[in-house]
Amino acid sequence: MNKKMLLKNLHELKKLNTNYYNNDFFLTWEKTDDEIKAVLLLAEILKELHKIGKSTRLFDTGLAVSIFRDKSTRTRFSYASAVNALGLSLEELDETKTQIAHGETERETANMISFLTETVGIRDDIYLGEGDKYQRNFSLAIQEGFNAGILHQRPSIINLQSDLDHPTQTLADLLKLKGYFGSLESLRGKKIVMSWAYSPSYGKPLSVPQGIIALMTRFGMDVTLAYPEGYDLLPETITIAKTNAENQKSKFEITHNMDDSFINADIVYPKSWASFQVMQKRTELLQNSDTAGLEKLEKQALQQNAKYKEWECNQDKMSLTKNGNALYMHCLPADITGVNCPAGEVSQEIFDRYKNDTYQEAGFKPFVIEAMILLTRFKNPYNIIKGLIKKNANRLLC
Amino acid sequence: MNKKMLLKNLHELKKLNTNYYNNDFFLTWEKTDDEIKAVLLLAEILKELHKIGKSTRLFDTGLAVSIFRDKSTRTRFSYASAVNALGLSLEELDETKTQIAHGETERETANMISFLTETVGIRDDIYLGEGDKYQRNFSLAIQEGFNAGILHQRPSIINLQSDLDHPTQTLADLLKLKGYFGSLESLRGKKIVMSWAYSPSYGKPLSVPQGIIALMTRFGMDVTLAYPEGYDLLPETITIAKTNAENQKSKFEITHNMDDSFINADIVYPKSWASFQVMQKRTELLQNSDTAGLEKLEKQALQQNAKYKEWECNQDKMSLTKNGNALYMHCLPADITGVNCPAGEVSQEIFDRYKNDTYQEAGFKPFVIEAMILLTRFKNPYNIIKGLIKKNANRLLC
Amino acid sequence: MNKKMLLKNLHELKKLNTNYYNNDFFLTWEKTDDEIKAVLLLAEILKELHKIGKSTRLFDTGLAVSIFRDKSTRTRFSYASAVNALGLSLEELDETKTQIAHGETERETANMISFLTETVGIRDDIYLGEGDKYQRNFSLAIQEGFNAGILHQRPSIINLQSDLDHPTQTLADLLKLKGYFGSLESLRGKKIVMSWAYSPSYGKPLSVPQGIIALMTRFGMDVTLAYPEGYDLLPETITIAKTNAENQKSKFEITHNMDDSFINADIVYPKSWASFQVMQKRTELLQNSDTAGLEKLEKQALQQNAKYKEWECNQDKMSLTKNGNALYMHCLPADITGVNCPAGEVSQEIFDRYKNDTYQEAGFKPFVIEAMILLTRFKNPYNIIKGLIKKNANRLLC
Repeated sequence: MNKKMLLKNLHELKKLNTNYYNNDFFLTWEKTDDEIKAVLLLAEILKELHKIGKSTRLFDTGLAVSIFRDKSTRTRFSYASAVNALGLSLEELDETKTQIAHGETERETANMISFLTETVGIRDDIYLGEGDKYQRNFSLAIQEGFNAGILHQRPSIINLQSDLDHPTQTLADLLKLKGYFGSLESLRGKKIVMSWAYSPSYGKPLSVPQGIIALMTRFGMDVTLAYPEGYDLLPETITIAKTNAENQKSKFEITHNMDDSFINADIVYPKSWASFQVMQKRTELLQNSDTAGLEKLEKQALQQNAKYKEWECNQDKMSLTKNGNALYMHCLPADITGVNCPAGEVSQEIFDRYKNDTYQEAGFKPFVIEAMILLTRFKNPYNIIKGLIKKNANRLLC
Repeated sequence: MNKKMLLKNLHELKKLNTNYYNNDFFLTWEKTDDEIKAVLLLAEILKELHKIGKSTRLFDTGLAVSIFRDKSTRTRFSYASAVNALGLSLEELDETKTQIAHGETERETANMISFLTETVGIRDDIYLGEGDKYQRNFSLAIQEGFNAGILHQRPSIINLQSDLDHPTQTLADLLKLKGYFGSLESLRGKKIVMSWAYSPSYGKPLSVPQGIIALMTRFGMDVTLAYPEGYDLLPETITIAKTNAENQKSKFEITHNMDDSFINADIVYPKSWASFQVMQKRTELLQNSDTAGLEKLEKQALQQNAKYKEWECNQDKMSLTKNGNALYMHCLPADITGVNCPAGEVSQEIFDRYKNDTYQEAGFKPFVIEAMILLTRFKNPYNIIKGLIKKNANRLLC
Repeated sequence: MNKKMLLKNLHELKKLNTNYYNNDFFLTWEKTDDEIKAVLLLAEILKELHKIGKSTRLFDTGLAVSIFRDKSTRTRFSYASAVNALGLSLEELDETKTQIAHGETERETANMISFLTETVGIRDDIYLGEGDKYQRNFSLAIQEGFNAGILHQRPSIINLQSDLDHPTQTLADLLKLKGYFGSLESLRGKKIVMSWAYSPSYGKPLSVPQGIIALMTRFGMDVTLAYPEGYDLLPETITIAKTNAENQKSKFEITHNMDDSFINADIVYPKSWASFQVMQKRTELLQNSDTAGLEKLEKQALQQNAKYKEWECNQDKMSLTKNGNALYMHCLPADITGVNCPAGEVSQEIFDRYKNDTYQEAGFKPFVIEAMILLTRFKNPYNIIKGLIKKNANRLLC
């Protein structure tokens, strides 16, 4: 057992000033540094407890609801794992099996599924300008229900990816970096490149690159955002990254040259996304059910993408990084050239070299989610964890 | 904690004479008054225990199966919540993922999914003359299996809505009335109007209006059933309502004028339904896979409905009720004029005024279902509840 | 309580030499006799504990994943029941809701869904040459992840039916035989007929007949495989059956005459299957998305089947068996003449006579699966069971 880490994290956790209880987790940039650190410390503790076979069950009964408005494997199982580790039962709100209408009844549904619910994880990343809004409307509805005494408890909303941010992913990424470089402090001055990369698909959400530049700039990292002209992110997230960098006296740079961006990088995160203009257009067309328009847009977007096939993370590009061995990151699944597509985000050689790193990166996600639920549903997480450690209950009951 | 209510209900529960153990819950009108009261008392107790954070877990392991042959959100989550609160794991029998044939093999399937199953919730309300029959065949099959020693325990069937009745809804409705007016006794002489209302959809089940007139007449309420000519309910449920009213020396009236029905009402329950003639025709056409016939029927039915757009619950109609402030009830989701349809069952003004009431009404459903499962699976519910209260275990394990 | 059986099985279990821990269950013929016996003994113990109302919960938290690449009711619920009885929560990997690509990312997915997963049940029986391979690739992937420290624990893979074997079914069948004839030893010299039977469907997997001839020949039974010419099984499974019979000094015979095969039989298992040539052809066509070819193949196969409508298990055929009362077995659902098809595998008369036997046969499956999970996830099953019996915890918590 890594008892030293447990005690160190617990000690740090005690000093933090957070305001999570009976709140939600939508966006990392709404949270204070202490609040971000609390998730990180807790996730590490919970992961260690799992590793050494301890139970972190905190609920005897209770529901956790998931709403996936987009396909998902990794996040779906991360959420399922997190709620299971806490003792909650998962119930998915599958909108194809339900009688959900829109408008007023969205608010109604939020209450109807929450009578015995402790937390609601929502992925809604397809429509720009919609996903975050949907989560907030959901939150308002259950807050109203809780205030009116309709709900006995207030479920917390966990953002499992919206049009703006993907906090469970980026905090898992940050934990990977913390572990890889030894501490949060050691990240100061490190250069991380969030780079667009080529993919033969289109319409990939902006939430990861937006979340990465907004989060990593808070920890004194030098963040370079690289993308071909036209693949802009939402302007407000650029502003957040700039402001963070100014506050931290670190760098935030934008470039349209992938090679340039990789020079002397400590970490690279090459990943495809659609431009926010394409996403906006797509949202309009989807809302108007304009199938012909959508097909045309897809064709255009794919043609546009195809101009940038050289935006692939490969050995040549990696050679430009610090000592040629920057850490390669990805939120998975990656488009790997010659493996699951003819030309993609990353060469097989590079992906294979860092495969275990990306798997470990993903392995933090269940515990990040578990930490978020714990923080939003329990008043004093420090006492809770101390209680768990003292209880010392095994996951295997024999 | 509402300790007084807990003790009062427990005291009353002890005196009741019920025969639930190893039985099912199909229809309220098959149950004795004591049996109906037992559900009400238990549901209130379980709701209060949940409210004060107590665990009502009674199973260490065990499955609860759900079979939804119609779309559902509210009932689906109510059932999921109820079985979770008891410690059971939910497993849905999704007929699209299964190898179910009809006839002999329906009986087989019932046993195959019941080896470790404690309860089976079934919604089957689309086919008139089919839903209730399906539930009873299911019950016969598992009874046979239990008698033959194939099943170690006999799962109870809970009717989550059939073509005849929707007991988990109407008992939740009754609990709302009990809470609103203070006691079951205070409902005597109160006038409740079960009224048809306009909706731009067709084919809505008859189970709620049938269940309401059959249940509320048992408690000495004056029940008025209002609907446009042609929107009849199943004759046997009318007979039940009449007989109940005679026994109670209260009124059961049918009118074809919504305004008349609302005059001096204490409670109004305006809700759309199809006529049983349309439902019969629809069942025939569905069974014959007569798509053209179905489309024609839908068109006719919607045209027929459209003649009665004035059957909307609005301020004018509410003004006719006692002091202009009858309680508005609905099983949700409601068709709200100008909100989720151009013209519907209720005006936005009225719906909003009673929104919290309808949410609270729905909030009883998980506990009604939990009570039904508890009653059908445990020999002595009084002792069980006494044990739970004595154990005083918290839902949060910390 | 059948305390004698519990103690006897426990005593036998202690003497067995098995190597299950941190391994998988793919095929019965990869397991030693001791390993097969361990599943049987444990399944009987777990079934008895369930029957007398005892809890067999061994996990406080943890996920069990299921992957069904073919429709399933019986096996789905058996698996759900087994994991629930152990305290695990079920999460289905529904490939229609996920972002799974093939090749490299199959290996990735295996790890991504396994961070907190204890066992993975996989049914993949549609493609000949694919199902078993898929399960083994999955196993390799998580073994790699476990070795690299990415997974804290190594989930076990349970074969819920592959193109080669259906071990959870055939071991349930064997338990039925053990119970019916009194002991494993008493099966020696008994004649069991695994016979093809007519069905108006095509493409049924070969896994059951292959599994039956490979398993039953190990216990000294005289096994006759009967099928119309052209309905061959995979040659390697024939070889296994032959070798077993030689080792046991018992008989393994193949005949193309159903009547002959039934003469003097103690047990008959008449069940339809496709020939492996048809399955191979089908696999090719499916992989090439050759819809026209598939339709043609189906037509041909059904015409071919239709030549053998006399391969029905009926009173005439049963009269040929030992004393006219051989035990009829089926993995369910059966195609019953005049019940769910005009002409099928078995007459209604015979099916009804043995209905309870086939239901009991199926009733062993949840406990076979539970035994497999227990064996693959716990080092010392003997101690575990002794602990459970000593703990004597009830399934009902009251």
